[in-house]
Amino acid sequence: MTTKWLYRFDEIDEVQQSVDGDWSQVLGLLGGKGANLGDMTRQGIPVPPGFTVTTAACNAYSDADGVMPAGLWNQMVLAIRELENQTGKRFGDPSQPLLVACRSGARFSMPGMMDTVLDIGLNDEVVKGMTAATKDEHFVLDSYRRLIQMFGAVVLGVADEAFETILRAKRQLRHVETDADLSASDLQDVISSFKAVVARQGLAPFPTDPFDQLRMATEAVFDSWRGKRAHDYRVAAHIPHDLGTAVNIVSMVFGNMGTNSATGVAMSRNATTGEARLEGDYLLNAQGEDVVAGIRATKPIEQLNDDMPEVAAQFAEIAKNLEIHHRDMQDMEFTVEQGKLWILQTRAGKRTAQAAVRIAVDQANEGLITKEEAVLRVSPDQIDFFLHPQFSAADLEASEPLAFGLNVSPGAAVGVAAFDADLAERWANEGKTVVLVRPETKPDDVHGMLAAAGILTSSGGRTSHAALVARQFGKPAVVGAAELEIDMVARSFTVGSHTVHEGEWISVDGTTGRVYDGKIETSAPDLENPWLTTLLGWADDFRTLEIRANADDPVEAARARSYGATGIGLCRTEHMFFDPKRLPIVQKMIVAVTAAERREAVEALLPYQRDDFVGLFRAMAGHPVIIRLLDPPLHEFLPSFDELKGQEFDLQLGLVNARDIAGIDRLVDELTIVRTMLERVDALRETNPMLGLRGVRLGLRIPELIRMQTRAITEAAIRVKQEGIEVRPEIMVPLVTFATEMEAARALIEGEMATVFEEQGDDLAIPIGTMIEVPRAALAAGQIAKHADFFSFGTNDLTQTTLAISRDDAEASFLIGYVTDEIVETNPFHSIDRDGVGRLMKMAVSDGRAEQEDLAIGICGEHGGEPASIALCQKLGLDYVSCSAFRVPVARLAAAHAALQPQAKESSK
Amino acid sequence: MTTKWLYRFDEIDEVQQSVDGDWSQVLGLLGGKGANLGDMTRQGIPVPPGFTVTTAACNAYSDADGVMPAGLWNQMVLAIRELENQTGKRFGDPSQPLLVACRSGARFSMPGMMDTVLDIGLNDEVVKGMTAATKDEHFVLDSYRRLIQMFGAVVLGVADEAFETILRAKRQLRHVETDADLSASDLQDVISSFKAVVARQGLAPFPTDPFDQLRMATEAVFDSWRGKRAHDYRVAAHIPHDLGTAVNIVSMVFGNMGTNSATGVAMSRNATTGEARLEGDYLLNAQGEDVVAGIRATKPIEQLNDDMPEVAAQFAEIAKNLEIHHRDMQDMEFTVEQGKLWILQTRAGKRTAQAAVRIAVDQANEGLITKEEAVLRVSPDQIDFFLHPQFSAADLEASEPLAFGLNVSPGAAVGVAAFDADLAERWANEGKTVVLVRPETKPDDVHGMLAAAGILTSSGGRTSHAALVARQFGKPAVVGAAELEIDMVARSFTVGSHTVHEGEWISVDGTTGRVYDGKIETSAPDLENPWLTTLLGWADDFRTLEIRANADDPVEAARARSYGATGIGLCRTEHMFFDPKRLPIVQKMIVAVTAAERREAVEALLPYQRDDFVGLFRAMAGHPVIIRLLDPPLHEFLPSFDELKGQEFDLQLGLVNARDIAGIDRLVDELTIVRTMLERVDALRETNPMLGLRGVRLGLRIPELIRMQTRAITEAAIRVKQEGIEVRPEIMVPLVTFATEMEAARALIEGEMATVFEEQGDDLAIPIGTMIEVPRAALAAGQIAKHADFFSFGTNDLTQTTLAISRDDAEASFLIGYVTDEIVETNPFHSIDRDGVGRLMKMAVSDGRAEQEDLAIGICGEHGGEPASIALCQKLGLDYVSCSAFRVPVARLAAAHAALQPQAKESSK
Repeated sequence: MTTKWLYRFDEIDEVQQSVDGDWSQVLGLLGGKGANLGDMTRQGIPVPPGFTVTTAACNAYSDADGVMPAGLWNQMVLAIRELENQTGKRFGDPSQPLLVACRSGARFSMPGMMDTVLDIGLNDEVVKGMTAATKDEHFVLDSYRRLIQMFGAVVLGVADEAFETILRAKRQLRHVETDADLSASDLQDVISSFKAVVARQGLAPFPTDPFDQLRMATEAVFDSWRGKRAHDYRVAAHIPHDLGTAVNIVSMVFGNMGTNSATGVAMSRNATTGEARLEGDYLLNAQGEDVVAGIRATKPIEQLNDDMPEVAAQFAEIAKNLEIHHRDMQDMEFTVEQGKLWILQTRAGKRTAQAAVRIAVDQANEGLITKEEAVLRVSPDQIDFFLHPQFSAADLEASEPLAFGLNVSPGAAVGVAAFDADLAERWANEGKTVVLVRPETKPDDVHGMLAAAGILTSSGGRTSHAALVARQFGKPAVVGAAELEIDMVARSFTVGSHTVHEGEWISVDGTTGRVYDGKIETSAPDLENPWLTTLLGWADDFRTLEIRANADDPVEAARARSYGATGIGLCRTEHMFFDPKRLPIVQKMIVAVTAAERREAVEALLPYQRDDFVGLFRAMAGHPVIIRLLDPPLHEFLPSFDELKGQEFDLQLGLVNARDIAGIDRLVDELTIVRTMLERVDALRETNPMLGLRGVRLGLRIPELIRMQTRAITEAAIRVKQEGIEVRPEIMVPLVTFATEMEAARALIEGEMATVFEEQGDDLAIPIGTMIEVPRAALAAGQIAKHADFFSFGTNDLTQTTLAISRDDAEASFLIGYVTDEIVETNPFHSIDRDGVGRLMKMAVSDGRAEQEDLAIGICGEHGGEPASIALCQKLGLDYVSCSAFRVPVARLAAAHAALQPQAKESSK
Repeated sequence: MTTKWLYRFDEIDEVQQSVDGDWSQVLGLLGGKGANLGDMTRQGIPVPPGFTVTTAACNAYSDADGVMPAGLWNQMVLAIRELENQTGKRFGDPSQPLLVACRSGARFSMPGMMDTVLDIGLNDEVVKGMTAATKDEHFVLDSYRRLIQMFGAVVLGVADEAFETILRAKRQLRHVETDADLSASDLQDVISSFKAVVARQGLAPFPTDPFDQLRMATEAVFDSWRGKRAHDYRVAAHIPHDLGTAVNIVSMVFGNMGTNSATGVAMSRNATTGEARLEGDYLLNAQGEDVVAGIRATKPIEQLNDDMPEVAAQFAEIAKNLEIHHRDMQDMEFTVEQGKLWILQTRAGKRTAQAAVRIAVDQANEGLITKEEAVLRVSPDQIDFFLHPQFSAADLEASEPLAFGLNVSPGAAVGVAAFDADLAERWANEGKTVVLVRPETKPDDVHGMLAAAGILTSSGGRTSHAALVARQFGKPAVVGAAELEIDMVARSFTVGSHTVHEGEWISVDGTTGRVYDGKIETSAPDLENPWLTTLLGWADDFRTLEIRANADDPVEAARARSYGATGIGLCRTEHMFFDPKRLPIVQKMIVAVTAAERREAVEALLPYQRDDFVGLFRAMAGHPVIIRLLDPPLHEFLPSFDELKGQEFDLQLGLVNARDIAGIDRLVDELTIVRTMLERVDALRETNPMLGLRGVRLGLRIPELIRMQTRAITEAAIRVKQEGIEVRPEIMVPLVTFATEMEAARALIEGEMATVFEEQGDDLAIPIGTMIEVPRAALAAGQIAKHADFFSFGTNDLTQTTLAISRDDAEASFLIGYVTDEIVETNPFHSIDRDGVGRLMKMAVSDGRAEQEDLAIGICGEHGGEPASIALCQKLGLDYVSCSAFRVPVARLAAAHAALQPQAKESSK
């Protein structure tokens, strides 16, 4: 039996049967495009007839170093004859010419990498006949010009620049902008020149015989598989080199053969809103390019009902069937040639986040897909759309960004620039919408950040203070926009030659990291969207990871609950310390000289802390609340050294100029105060605060702090319990490095709890656990698990220490460059570094659970809201992820994805 | 058969046979002391007769809640009768009284934890008889007084304070200092009072019957095993509670029974020098305590030949035999009672480091022990003695330390205090011996540190700059002496009320961390000591780890070679950058604005670097030299931010006061320069420089640096090779975190090497490897090994990052406290943290070698010279350790220990 090297589109069943129905083998043999055309043909959808030369033919051709395998050309000639019979046209016949396209089509899409030749079959004779038939000399000549150009470049090796030079010269001569404006006679000239160029520079002259054209084009497509461009692409995309490409020979159809012809594109559902009705555009008597080019005003697809009612009905039916067949919204190209509808292509349609959610839910409700599929159809990142205001795509296109930074917290913000937190707050109180612009932010700035609609900084990285707080509170933010030169004296910032003054409008896009001058319109967030609610509800049914939120106060806790969090995975008590009422007490505690002074300050903090927790426990009734004991180094609560040095300098300068005794006395007093503070701050300064005195190290050094916080938690829990509310507090010890630290901290905590229980005559269970945020903690997790009721991975710090990369410095200084240069696959502060941090986590989970089988383990770093990291947590067997409230809906969906397709997110290693 | 509850010392063979010769079971049954007395008896050594009540008896007594097991007392009475027969004395017989001691003796020594009662057998009658016999009423009465006091306290539960009160009152009455000055009649009074106190406060009156005394004392020793003091000790020392104690009943002998009696102590070899001759002291007609108390002038043991020639000969013979028997130098107590020699105790003698080395070598040469044993007899830390000058023990005892700090670099230094590096250098050039005193040191200070005899700082930890440099150059150093208040304006430091001014003498003991006022004499180092040379030679034969040194220049390299290093494991190229001639070029490179400026500066450094390497390669002919590419962050080469701020401030203040135009112009110019530098320094400032832009990160950002260093190394290597010298350079990339970094750096290095080979028309092999000093590098070692020819663990940084502890901050702020509070077993910067860092190292070795079977792996952190860490490296299968030149001899011995007893250094986990 001779090998069958090609299949007509209508032979698709035969192909599939020959491989026992295995569609993936069909794809392998016919390529993606060929299989798809065959599949549509089999469904009775009117596809222009044609056939597919198999990948096996391509491989045989390659193996024989560019010689067609025996039988192939004969089969192609026979297949053309059948095409002639099917279409009633003839190859090279000027009166009824059959034109075909020769298109590459590999198993995996390699856009732009391989070659295509259209309009094969044209020559001087055929052109004349077609011009007579179409009455459109310009179109026919332009098609011919294109064939020679494409064929010359692809098949005959002429540099495309040679053709473009000729076209450019002609346009200049005629003073026109585009080739479409050239006259038919101009095109005749161009065609002559093209032929001459090919004759002079090509491997051979342009062949006039359509069969020569077909054979040479087919061989050129085969050759392009082995071309450097395609080879490099396959290396990058991990596509094997031995697949080969198929070649599709498709008869050409034309939508510009009179008013009973048309061409258009349409989606089976609305790609913007997701509404379940056809959406698209078409043109009567036009070619496909005209619809895209926007030269003529297109008509909405609804009007096709009036223009061509039968075709419209047929198309609607086909669209519906294609959607059912592919079980997804379809993006289709069609042409009507003299009243006859042809479908040229169908594929899954691109859609907005909003449409993606609605379509997935509608299709599941229609029974077209399962709920699992609906959940998997929406990517977790698309949920962001619903959470934040967004700039409209159209407005963005019309605007030139002023600067670029890191897109650390998504959403759009428009407001007047305010250069300090106090002013931002004052203006916000006055009803203005404000964007806070700072070189960087500090805990002091939080009130201004909360008052602002968005945040913009010129330095800092993805996990800088500004980025963390912005995400925490869902404020759109762009940080590290290094082009901004902020002048705090002039109250303005400059990018290049452009200056924005305080009070002027700017727009900040936290989704893309772009900064714009002036106001850009925004759309409102849409978290109540009913389709979204439904989808997330389904996601909750499928996921096995619990989703908790990082929240520090009752308002945030309530928000987290409303977004679907079922617990607080991280309450950072230090945020409570920055409250303006408390900060002076905290500072008093830090600068205390005697133990009694320190104790007094610590005790003054107790009622505040207790009230914080009472509110939190009420808001989280029935749900776990993990409270982390004080974590940051003490100097974070004091003014900065540089700031104090500046004050000292100003006061000294003041003294030099002072003339009256009273003034001097006052300055000297102030100087003394500043210098005392300076001394204390200097003593607490650390070369590497990240690796310094903080977390449990600080707690063991100032045990009063651990006791006070334990007391506040325990007293609050008992009070709320006695209100009849279910309370589930847990205490978390930060920065544990040695099991002995955990043991010592636990003893302190349990001792204080026992005292409070005794005093209150009541008790409740309060598990005590630890952060795993230092590599050694992960390495010694088995020992630590002896003293801990739960683990929570602090992957921000764990990433910093495991990679020896400081988040405060590194992102701007080299990490972003590493991402660009592909030293790292993704920013490890964005998505967990699997090979390093992930490996430590795996060890910690396994060693921890070996010691304590049912050890509860979660994650509370920024990664807890990032889909790929969530997939890793699922794989590692974690119990929960905890992220900022605004990431909770994203996490719910990502967790469902992780549960439904645990392997899909795997690294390709 | 009734249980045998006790054994006479001369029944030792019977005991050992009963347990099939197993000496450890003998130790278990008789305790350490009992077994030792039996062992001496068996050798025919004259031991005072006696017997041992077994630990089994103690356990039976405990199990029965304090009732002696059946048969025990009968056996004890019979044993006393035999003692009477052996000694010719009788229990309770005034004319020939037998006195015995009742001593506890557990399997493991528990010094001071358990009870002993001496002189059992004394009562009023016996005292009278003994007084008549000894003619020494004071001695007999004092013995009696002691018996009542000991018995009262140990057996009858009287608080010792009651006895001491009586003695104190009597001394005050008589206006004497010691009990020895009380008259016999005073002692009679004291005895009466003691009896009265016992009668009033004791569980029972003082028993006059010697058998009652014996029984009660034995039971009291049994009870003391279960006492709180002993229990706590066993918990701390990990001694099981069910071992029980034996009780040794030994007949008392007296060296004060006339001029044919004597008592003394002696070592079988000289404990200070190790010389192979008896060394000791004795007194004629004296009791043991008198020798120790120093009331009478003792005689050197040599004189015994004159006083008692036969006894002396007998003792010398016994000493020799005991040494042979125990295969070690012995420390013996002896008594001569009326011409008869008794050996009371023998044990391994304590010795100085010098003696330890000589004795071990001599004994091996004598064939007494093997060379392996000789090597194991000397602890690696003892080698330090030979490497540095030392203070004499006597002088130290006479001096009160002024302050304490961290003993970071051993040895003694005496010099005048100099408060800055320039002055230290100037004074040293003038011939003064100087101790450099600084709050902390910086690279700028190195010339002063080199000029100084020792270094003292008030801040910084075990791996601070001062500590690292001091160890590197073998300079004695004490750092972090926090009590020192250094006043840089007054040029003095104060501790409490004591002030030391610049130019005054101080003494610094880097071995103990103590600082003294004034001059203390020192002894010279002794590395040429022939016994040491022999011992280290043997060590080299046994060890399997190669020992390399960290050295940055030819002088250090030569020193390392002379100390026995067979390669350079770490040459830090940055040290070459701090040279005053080069620093301006380095700074120019850093502040360069254009690429051309930068390239020019980098190229200006090339000849310097090349010359450095030429010298190094010549010094290390035939041995490997691992050169690490530039590691530290750039800001280390610039003035500090605070310093520049201070300059800015001064200049601004100057401007305020300036009156003449020229002065103002000059100040403005200076201010501009300072501000430009300030801006650059500020841009390079990092919150956590440890986790910042340095190592390979810097190299990939400034590839010119990698290229220049590679070129310098390669050109130097080829030049030295062409001189006919074998050159073995290796290039090491620092701070690799991702395999891709190593891949990129390797490509740069190989590219430049190829260029140089081409230019020079010559080539040689230069392996390219990496530091493993970031947790992620250890975790991804398998991937990194694909691009690395060798690994070198940088355990300083690996410890900092794995434990999230900054060496610059943490030691002073909490780590020392952690050691004290036993949160950590040892300072992890001193000895490798096994459970954390050690586990990472193990993974890296195993994954690295899985990828590349013969991957060379070493260590070049400070730990490379620390014995326990060296043992870990041996266990992990490393190829070499590299440490500062001064640690090389220590490392050679430690590596031999690790090879000879790999298990002995294991953690007890």
